[in-house]
Amino acid sequence: MKIGILGTGVVGQTIAEKLVQLGHNVMIGTRGKQATLAKTGKDNFGRPPFSEWHKNNFKIEFGTYSETASFGEFLVNATNGIGSIDALKIAGENNLANKVLLDISNPLDFSKGMPPTLTICNTDSLAEQIQRTFPKSKVVKSLNTLTAMLMTNPGLLPEPTNIFLNGNDGNAKEEVKKLLISFGWKEKNIIDMGDITTARGTEQILPIWVRLWGTLQTPMFNFKIVVAAKN
Amino acid sequence: MKIGILGTGVVGQTIAEKLVQLGHNVMIGTRGKQATLAKTGKDNFGRPPFSEWHKNNFKIEFGTYSETASFGEFLVNATNGIGSIDALKIAGENNLANKVLLDISNPLDFSKGMPPTLTICNTDSLAEQIQRTFPKSKVVKSLNTLTAMLMTNPGLLPEPTNIFLNGNDGNAKEEVKKLLISFGWKEKNIIDMGDITTARGTEQILPIWVRLWGTLQTPMFNFKIVVAAKN
Repeated sequence: MKIGILGTGVVGQTIAEKLVQLGHNVMIGTRGKQATLAKTGKDNFGRPPFSEWHKNNFKIEFGTYSETASFGEFLVNATNGIGSIDALKIAGENNLANKVLLDISNPLDFSKGMPPTLTICNTDSLAEQIQRTFPKSKVVKSLNTLTAMLMTNPGLLPEPTNIFLNGNDGNAKEEVKKLLISFGWKEKNIIDMGDITTARGTEQILPIWVRLWGTLQTPMFNFKIVVAAKN
Repeated sequence: MKIGILGTGVVGQTIAEKLVQLGHNVMIGTRGKQATLAKTGKDNFGRPPFSEWHKNNFKIEFGTYSETASFGEFLVNATNGIGSIDALKIAGENNLANKVLLDISNPLDFSKGMPPTLTICNTDSLAEQIQRTFPKSKVVKSLNTLTAMLMTNPGLLPEPTNIFLNGNDGNAKEEVKKLLISFGWKEKNIIDMGDITTARGTEQILPIWVRLWGTLQTPMFNFKIVVAAKN
């Protein structure tokens, strides 16, 4: 499958690497190619600059947001949540139309330091805003509730955990589910929460996620929903 | 220990029953005793009216908010989150002072139907509001992230799950931890998240909790945090 990933940060890179390993044709997209290639030094997570990563991952095509959205039959929003709507507008409404858009972004504002706050919450969610702004796209929120390395390697945890799906289009959720299964997620651990408004819940677990990261001193954790046996 | 529980709903009743079983002297408090006793018919959860419950639990003393707060050396806020600040004011600042106040309430607004919204979130929490309003009390948020029956019977789930503590006073958190252990929680599964501002995270998992209740068709579940083994 031709997959376009918007966003060249740790999430975009991690998803892109996995998709190439799985045999997909992948393009990763950025706002400005020259600016992204010109970055030197490590990022906030201590990772090498994009140009170095791309040398080691030369099978992944590199494009603008627009080129990447046009290239992909299936799209992934891995941009910073604060800039996601803007990035998707640059990608172009027509390039996004009639495609599944897997939205991994979180509306986290780190500008006032730790802990971050949410720019959208409670009665709305970023996923809903994206779906409203691009009504022809089939937005499915998933994978936003855990660190990048675990998104594509759930088996790194000592026991199965859960991942959530939120979206209005049942077929689009099935496509995302297949992708998650190819990443190593077990079907029984993928919870379809319902329509896109259920993304309010999955986005609002980020505040406890961020605090757990501090408490546990590692981002390598995930939520498991333990349910009582039926009577 | 003499324990005062503010709130006569399912959470207050469940906690009161457990505390009596554990040998504590318990009073459960309400805004208006006559009004609470006059209720007939089942509540929203299909439970019998308070008066019937109290006949079966006659060892539990029944008082006003003020009598209950005065009675308890250790207090539990099991009132409806929307009315908690008001209820605690009626209980009386002096009656709350210098005591641990275990806050189980959630700022959920069901007035516009399902799903409920939060009346406070993101940059504040109900627990913080309570702590600010009653600065002499030692507020510890806990148990608000699961259904009443599991609060006092965590062993009803097929595997250990987690419970959170949020509060500014380390000794108060230790007292609450001891109580949780007496309820059946294992010490290693009680996560001290830090100061009272971390209650933002635990209160904001209610939106996904409510949606999971719908998806799973049961409230009998809880979150388990699965962490990768250290390298």
